[in-house]
Amino acid sequence: MLKIASAQMEIQPGRPDINTENMLRLIEEAKAAHADVVIFPEMAIPGYLLGDTWEQDSFLRDTEACAADIIAASDGIAVIFGSVAVDWTKKNNDGRPRKYNACFIASEGKLQHPEAMPYPFVIKTLMPNYREFDDTRHFFSLQKLAHELGTTPKSLISPVSLKIRGNRWKIGCLLCEDGWSDNYETAPMKLLEEYEDIDFYVNISSSPYTLGKNEKRHRLFSAAAKAAGAPLFYVNNVGLQNNGKTVYTFDGASAVYSSEGRCVAAAPAYKEGLHYIDVAEIPSRPVVKREKTSEIAEIYAALSYGVKKFLQSIRMEKVVVGASGGIDSAVAAALYTKVLGAENVLLVNMPSRFNSQTTRDLAHALAKNLGCYYAVFPIEESVQRTMEQIAKTPVELLKTGERKELAVSPFLAENIQARDRSSRVLAALAAAFGGGFSCNANKAETTVGYSTLYGDQAGFLAALADLWKHQVYDLARYMNEHIFQREVVPSATIDIVPSAELSDAQNVDEGKGDPLLYPYHDYLFRAFVERWEKATPEDILDWYVKGTLEQQIGCEKGLVKKHFHSSKEFIADLERWWNLFSGLAVAKRIQAPPILAVSRRAYGFDHREAQNGAYYTRAYRKMKEQLAFPRTL
Amino acid sequence: MLKIASAQMEIQPGRPDINTENMLRLIEEAKAAHADVVIFPEMAIPGYLLGDTWEQDSFLRDTEACAADIIAASDGIAVIFGSVAVDWTKKNNDGRPRKYNACFIASEGKLQHPEAMPYPFVIKTLMPNYREFDDTRHFFSLQKLAHELGTTPKSLISPVSLKIRGNRWKIGCLLCEDGWSDNYETAPMKLLEEYEDIDFYVNISSSPYTLGKNEKRHRLFSAAAKAAGAPLFYVNNVGLQNNGKTVYTFDGASAVYSSEGRCVAAAPAYKEGLHYIDVAEIPSRPVVKREKTSEIAEIYAALSYGVKKFLQSIRMEKVVVGASGGIDSAVAAALYTKVLGAENVLLVNMPSRFNSQTTRDLAHALAKNLGCYYAVFPIEESVQRTMEQIAKTPVELLKTGERKELAVSPFLAENIQARDRSSRVLAALAAAFGGGFSCNANKAETTVGYSTLYGDQAGFLAALADLWKHQVYDLARYMNEHIFQREVVPSATIDIVPSAELSDAQNVDEGKGDPLLYPYHDYLFRAFVERWEKATPEDILDWYVKGTLEQQIGCEKGLVKKHFHSSKEFIADLERWWNLFSGLAVAKRIQAPPILAVSRRAYGFDHREAQNGAYYTRAYRKMKEQLAFPRTL
Repeated sequence: MLKIASAQMEIQPGRPDINTENMLRLIEEAKAAHADVVIFPEMAIPGYLLGDTWEQDSFLRDTEACAADIIAASDGIAVIFGSVAVDWTKKNNDGRPRKYNACFIASEGKLQHPEAMPYPFVIKTLMPNYREFDDTRHFFSLQKLAHELGTTPKSLISPVSLKIRGNRWKIGCLLCEDGWSDNYETAPMKLLEEYEDIDFYVNISSSPYTLGKNEKRHRLFSAAAKAAGAPLFYVNNVGLQNNGKTVYTFDGASAVYSSEGRCVAAAPAYKEGLHYIDVAEIPSRPVVKREKTSEIAEIYAALSYGVKKFLQSIRMEKVVVGASGGIDSAVAAALYTKVLGAENVLLVNMPSRFNSQTTRDLAHALAKNLGCYYAVFPIEESVQRTMEQIAKTPVELLKTGERKELAVSPFLAENIQARDRSSRVLAALAAAFGGGFSCNANKAETTVGYSTLYGDQAGFLAALADLWKHQVYDLARYMNEHIFQREVVPSATIDIVPSAELSDAQNVDEGKGDPLLYPYHDYLFRAFVERWEKATPEDILDWYVKGTLEQQIGCEKGLVKKHFHSSKEFIADLERWWNLFSGLAVAKRIQAPPILAVSRRAYGFDHREAQNGAYYTRAYRKMKEQLAFPRTL
Repeated sequence: MLKIASAQMEIQPGRPDINTENMLRLIEEAKAAHADVVIFPEMAIPGYLLGDTWEQDSFLRDTEACAADIIAASDGIAVIFGSVAVDWTKKNNDGRPRKYNACFIASEGKLQHPEAMPYPFVIKTLMPNYREFDDTRHFFSLQKLAHELGTTPKSLISPVSLKIRGNRWKIGCLLCEDGWSDNYETAPMKLLEEYEDIDFYVNISSSPYTLGKNEKRHRLFSAAAKAAGAPLFYVNNVGLQNNGKTVYTFDGASAVYSSEGRCVAAAPAYKEGLHYIDVAEIPSRPVVKREKTSEIAEIYAALSYGVKKFLQSIRMEKVVVGASGGIDSAVAAALYTKVLGAENVLLVNMPSRFNSQTTRDLAHALAKNLGCYYAVFPIEESVQRTMEQIAKTPVELLKTGERKELAVSPFLAENIQARDRSSRVLAALAAAFGGGFSCNANKAETTVGYSTLYGDQAGFLAALADLWKHQVYDLARYMNEHIFQREVVPSATIDIVPSAELSDAQNVDEGKGDPLLYPYHDYLFRAFVERWEKATPEDILDWYVKGTLEQQIGCEKGLVKKHFHSSKEFIADLERWWNLFSGLAVAKRIQAPPILAVSRRAYGFDHREAQNGAYYTRAYRKMKEQLAFPRTL
């Protein structure tokens, strides 16, 4: 008998004080429930995504003091928890104090020493340094330590022994990435398995939510428990953490895997709580039936939790949404209303001469369906005045006295409208309403910068900017059907052609709208961004020539032929968007609001980019030339 | 006799095509000058700061094809150059193709194999992963390779042997960080020294400019050459590279150090060119007299080069500067005018009721001094209309029909002015003028977000955002005296109190202005950001109590006592700015324009941060409590 409590706690990044208090409370609760061991996630005390806060020595000392409190609380219960461990006598490669991402095992007020480790804690062996992860920047890995000590990871990786009510238990402790060792030269779990007397394994994690990641983890960890022939406890935190530009939800999804590789316990997503299981009862526990949730249900769960926690974290209780009558703003409005309540959301329609009665009515219908605050702020007059002011104020070259008048182009007139809406009206209204205003951009727009800086790209958070346009539509339908269980997003908003309505060329009543062919471009852009080995025009053109493009990018069959009548048209479209994606869109993303991440590759810290402009490889240029001038036989 | 050409080339990041063409041209030039060896910088073909472009396989293949051309051009001349080397049969830890940051040594059309290396190129051993560097994210280090092969770096690090006109030369090749091994467990240069027959060393670098870095490099590399007893060629590139938010100049500053540790050749900063030296003449060459340049002269050189190259890279030829009459916009205007010429710069003064005649006149005087385009765009009417529109448009809660009016607070009125200027006027004017508009923020403002989002924080580039306020003043004086050699920035602009002039409380004629006490806060904030181990309120308060604060942060003596009459006042000030620095200012920086870096720590990719809010450690809270309630004896 050994009762284990998995503490799927909510971690506040950068708040050792709050996290420690929370942990002490959970320890008391676990004690009261007669648990023998309580397991907390990785970096439970400091939080995980902290930017360069790790360079503040006072912050490190503070986490040490907090850890001492947790260790002291381990009387009558063993406490396994993650935090930063500092060896002040050594340096990291950057010359700063040596920091380890560590797992502490405390019992009877003392740390338990892993058998072969030079420290009284377990050190994370594998450091993720892809996507949003920055472990190598701050933490010294066990691999590096082994090298420094002139030995191998194998000789350091060892179980921890714990004496509980007269019995000895051997535990194999791993930290997050240690369980994902596919592409590393060291596999910590395999090395632990060589100790044949390990009773169970623990993987403490701080693993951000990503669409589809849980499925993969279940497969991987089931197989690992089975291979090891011992149960595996996976403990992950819930909460929200960010890297500045990119904001991550943590869904927890803590689980227990039996030695047969069956998942016998699973904590609910996004809920803090203690989950108890006795090691003895694991073999007889039934397999947890994991609900088959749709992709869009998962996305909704992540977004609604993320929005709620983000608002809490910046202490914002009211939100203004510019409602155009289109799909993106409608979904954003529905999401914020669900999270904050109708009385805390203000929808504003800001028509210019180019906005149809159709979309004005749709914006109003949406607000009515939601029951939230609503107002109409026409921008026509202000936009006209700005254009006049520019046209009528000559600029004078003072060195010669020459004067010239500046002209307002139609394209500039579009941007003036967009900025008038966001920077003049929404920003001021948000402050007057007592909150912030939402950026409603989706990922397709964000990819190619189909938006105006300080205009529709502005806002305190871009909650939908990691969703492709088709996912925004899915979300509208899902929220109508499952969340509100009535038509909140008007069906006409779902059916109408997507349009910015910034000129006569974008008249929705005439079926005119965005230059983006979303059912194709969503997937083309996804290939630029989300493929593990990113696709460029060279790959795209190669697939086009081979006739495998639709299959490769995953869009509907027949679209390429439908939209492009020649390779010349195809190439013109490809280069148009690639130029924007690599050029102006990068400049816009640098100044974009924080993005709530759900995909395997979100803009911001997860997709690092330089403002270097578009590049076309030799191979691409050659292929293009051959298509333009095909050699005859 | 061995004539060596150091190719301090300009690298275009992300443009293997342009860089390869440039290298082939320089190789021909070196051949014509009868050089035996030509040395190019690190990552000469692809560029260095490319974000996640390294994840595009087609880009990697393209650099391989380019490298093949360079290797083929090595007939009659040996070519040493940096590029990415891909081992397609192996994986990085992220599962992507194995990439090395490599130094290639080509001669007679073939790669020369380092004696003990498993590849025909030298692999970078040490991977910087601090500041703006992200090497570990993309490249597999020699240390890791050694571990994978079950051996040590020592057994792989070896010289390259080159046969030139019948003679054999042994060269020790290093890549950038390999020469800065202080805090690493491996010191590549020391390991090479064990080969006693090395004729000379080469360090190919791609090292961004940082104030003061060249001095340190001279000390380090002089000592290294002396210790090795052989000459050292340091070859760095020029140009501009960026990580999105942070933009770096590369000053080159290539140099040759003799075996006695004397610097015997130094290339001029920021200039592309080949520099020849014969190995035989090194011992007899005089020491290069390095000019003592002032800090501000260095900064001016970096900024003017950086602005010029950044504008070129985004193909922008005209710039609009909002000219308030204050110091920041005056310095920005002078800088852009120097770079672009007066006929390509438009200064715009945008007065509201709060702008004094004093500053209006100063803005005009500045424009006159520069001779550039000038215009006055009053914003009073537009601002009033926006405030009226908000006050007069009730918002209606549709679920109840309740209506309410929103009020415009004085603080909101300030932000409306700032946004009206930038997002309404400047953004539109810039487009009409055919360019972008400048963000004139300095580092002190940027630190605490003393600016308005979509207002004065907006722009295409924040050229001064890595300068503390006192450095902006220094720059004004320097440009007047040395660059323009006349008063361009009006002396009254330098003398007047810094003020945003957004309310009556900021009346410059009454000597009222910013809440920032720059001579103190510049240095306080610098301690938050630029110290290698960052200072927090705990450190600051500790120094305050000990009486060492001014010495620790480097500000003028006596300021603390002058500004704060009690510890209560001191703490209130400290917490006010720390809260902003860690809170709202982070949100603003996420949406800030790219920042031109000059300091040892610039905002953006060099100072990674999360929107986590302010934190005060236990030790701080305890100290604060003791100051509030000092224990009596």
